[in-house]
Amino acid sequence: MISLEKFMEASKIIKQVSNETKLVYSEFFSNETGNKVYFKPENMQFTGAYKLRGAYYKISTLSKEKRDKGLITASAGNHAQGVAYAAKVFNAKAIIVMPTGTPLIKINRTRSYGATVILHGDVYDEAYQYACQLALKEGYTFIHPFNDLDVACGQASVAVEIIEELKDVDYILCPIGGGGLCAGVSMFAKLINKNIKVIGVEPIGANCMQESIRQNKVVTLESVNTIADGTAVKTPGDLVFPIIRDNVDEIITVSDEELILCFLDMIENHKMIVENSGLLTVAALRHLDCKNKKIVSILSGGNMDVITMSSMVQNGLIQRGRIFSVSCLLPDKPGELEKIAGVIARAKGNVIKLDHNQFVNVNRLAQVELRITIEAFGLDHKAEIVKALEVNGYKPLVKRTHL
Amino acid sequence: MISLEKFMEASKIIKQVSNETKLVYSEFFSNETGNKVYFKPENMQFTGAYKLRGAYYKISTLSKEKRDKGLITASAGNHAQGVAYAAKVFNAKAIIVMPTGTPLIKINRTRSYGATVILHGDVYDEAYQYACQLALKEGYTFIHPFNDLDVACGQASVAVEIIEELKDVDYILCPIGGGGLCAGVSMFAKLINKNIKVIGVEPIGANCMQESIRQNKVVTLESVNTIADGTAVKTPGDLVFPIIRDNVDEIITVSDEELILCFLDMIENHKMIVENSGLLTVAALRHLDCKNKKIVSILSGGNMDVITMSSMVQNGLIQRGRIFSVSCLLPDKPGELEKIAGVIARAKGNVIKLDHNQFVNVNRLAQVELRITIEAFGLDHKAEIVKALEVNGYKPLVKRTHL
Repeated sequence: MISLEKFMEASKIIKQVSNETKLVYSEFFSNETGNKVYFKPENMQFTGAYKLRGAYYKISTLSKEKRDKGLITASAGNHAQGVAYAAKVFNAKAIIVMPTGTPLIKINRTRSYGATVILHGDVYDEAYQYACQLALKEGYTFIHPFNDLDVACGQASVAVEIIEELKDVDYILCPIGGGGLCAGVSMFAKLINKNIKVIGVEPIGANCMQESIRQNKVVTLESVNTIADGTAVKTPGDLVFPIIRDNVDEIITVSDEELILCFLDMIENHKMIVENSGLLTVAALRHLDCKNKKIVSILSGGNMDVITMSSMVQNGLIQRGRIFSVSCLLPDKPGELEKIAGVIARAKGNVIKLDHNQFVNVNRLAQVELRITIEAFGLDHKAEIVKALEVNGYKPLVKRTHL
Repeated sequence: MISLEKFMEASKIIKQVSNETKLVYSEFFSNETGNKVYFKPENMQFTGAYKLRGAYYKISTLSKEKRDKGLITASAGNHAQGVAYAAKVFNAKAIIVMPTGTPLIKINRTRSYGATVILHGDVYDEAYQYACQLALKEGYTFIHPFNDLDVACGQASVAVEIIEELKDVDYILCPIGGGGLCAGVSMFAKLINKNIKVIGVEPIGANCMQESIRQNKVVTLESVNTIADGTAVKTPGDLVFPIIRDNVDEIITVSDEELILCFLDMIENHKMIVENSGLLTVAALRHLDCKNKKIVSILSGGNMDVITMSSMVQNGLIQRGRIFSVSCLLPDKPGELEKIAGVIARAKGNVIKLDHNQFVNVNRLAQVELRITIEAFGLDHKAEIVKALEVNGYKPLVKRTHL
């Protein structure tokens, strides 16, 4: 439906304003998976995500008259900044409708590119409806985040650059939210070489495209549940759905826990912040059943609030056994704290927090609960510390999910 | 003392094994400072720091006999990994002496490059002495982290690449620990063009080079106190000191607080993890008194433990007013919590933690202390919330340093 010439033309136009992100070879993931793994770091793209590509190309296809009239979209995320950034280059008026609860930081960043932000509605759907109404009423052109073939054609420039840089790529892993990026990437890749495998990746809790392909029609999920907010989409785009169905080889789904571990892996091994939706294709590397292949994972973006980041790091440390909490019942008398502290110290655990609860037993002289948060070297060391407590007569209860 | 030819030759040799990190333009810091700011991202270098450059070049100058005999160094940080990585390329035996308290993660990473790690001594100096003894006894060649002209010549390849990419650079900002990197960078830059200003940057609490230049002799600080562990050096190298004294235009010192804010700035605007010593040159940007200049800040490395990172993020959020704690005294009776929660809610503060202390007053019925941790949009919003509490009759005590 989109010709090779159009893909190449779009890519050329987009290069004028985008950062031509270079592939990053990953020694860590190559060693771990037995493949040659590369990242396409669109987290390093201007505005922190690939979205400006599709937005810019779409706007470039509009007449000057339409651009002068104004552009509108609804988004609380990367698409908002992409449209604002692209509109600014064309000196076009951009209106972005965001739900009222949108974090100030995202509002400010979108405004910093010169866009007008309107806060409307409690959830995204309400903001979207309002933006559509405004578009009709005022004659603005609506720039859809994913369900638009020109937008998809623009996003495909990610794949154009990948293949320019790595001609013999075997696999391209691409995140799927509504399907705009993946439609462009998969269609272009197959046009160039049918043998390139394109794998779509969705959150387990928001697998609208996988479900739609299974039923061979666009379906709407009842609810979505994932920390990958950029791809938490209930209904894939009906225009891009058939493209993905016909061009994508497989769809892999990954869990929130996998994303959290990949967040730490990317920080430690590549010193890069990748947002949760961008980590989908990193987590999917561990699902692939192949060896000695050249694989590119598209890191779609890097926009993560620092407060979210802080909780990602903490959860990652817990999953890795670097921090954990145990609770023990102790007789409530002097000297007990010293005894248990000695056991932990000899096992080389580092106590970072203590909580004392005297109300655990009706007879409070008999037992108090001591909750101890400990820093360890990892899961093996954590097990050793717990073992040491058991050997010394304690019955440590390990808290699984939080500190 | 080092010729232009030697610098160029070293740079050529190093390119064979290093990642030729490309300059990253910073729109954020350019706008903030009124200059054109670029980063040389050596945090993206193999091993996560520039150190492999000097180590590799140094090893390349040794005879095969010496390399076969073995190489040794003392380091708990980036130099350890740099030597291990470089030695592996030459198939040479590398022994790294680390203090016994070195985190397991750094030991493992150094071992992963094939080096033998020996744990010895409580502090770095003891590890260093032991490594020198072993070198003498076993005939190993000691690879000094900074006080060696070949090492400095290798590190200068950072500047060679900067000037190749940005011919008309006006300022180069370079971190100083012992002085190896800065000696190489400043000497090379001045050889190329006397008008390039080279600014050294040290932590306020570890300004051994600034102090040595002031006294025009190598001095040893009594103690060092900084979170920038990679540049926490008491005595600069006596071989590199005169080079820096003669080639560096100025030395700027920055505080831990500035580094913490820059850590967040780099995450949010560049999606990159930069370790504290690497942030020195970012913080220094705000000290410069110039406009419209082309400035390159060398980000020396990105190796930061995730637990440290977690506390950096938290401290940064506190400094920015994104999280804060207030303590209020309340009458100990039903309904008081609801009342104060309402005040905070109307000011749009988000309560994330509550601590109740009933023992603050002898008459516990009169008053309890409620400590509230609140998420806000920033310093202005924090002030508004505190004001709202005051207007409603509370006497909130804002906790300054921790949660």
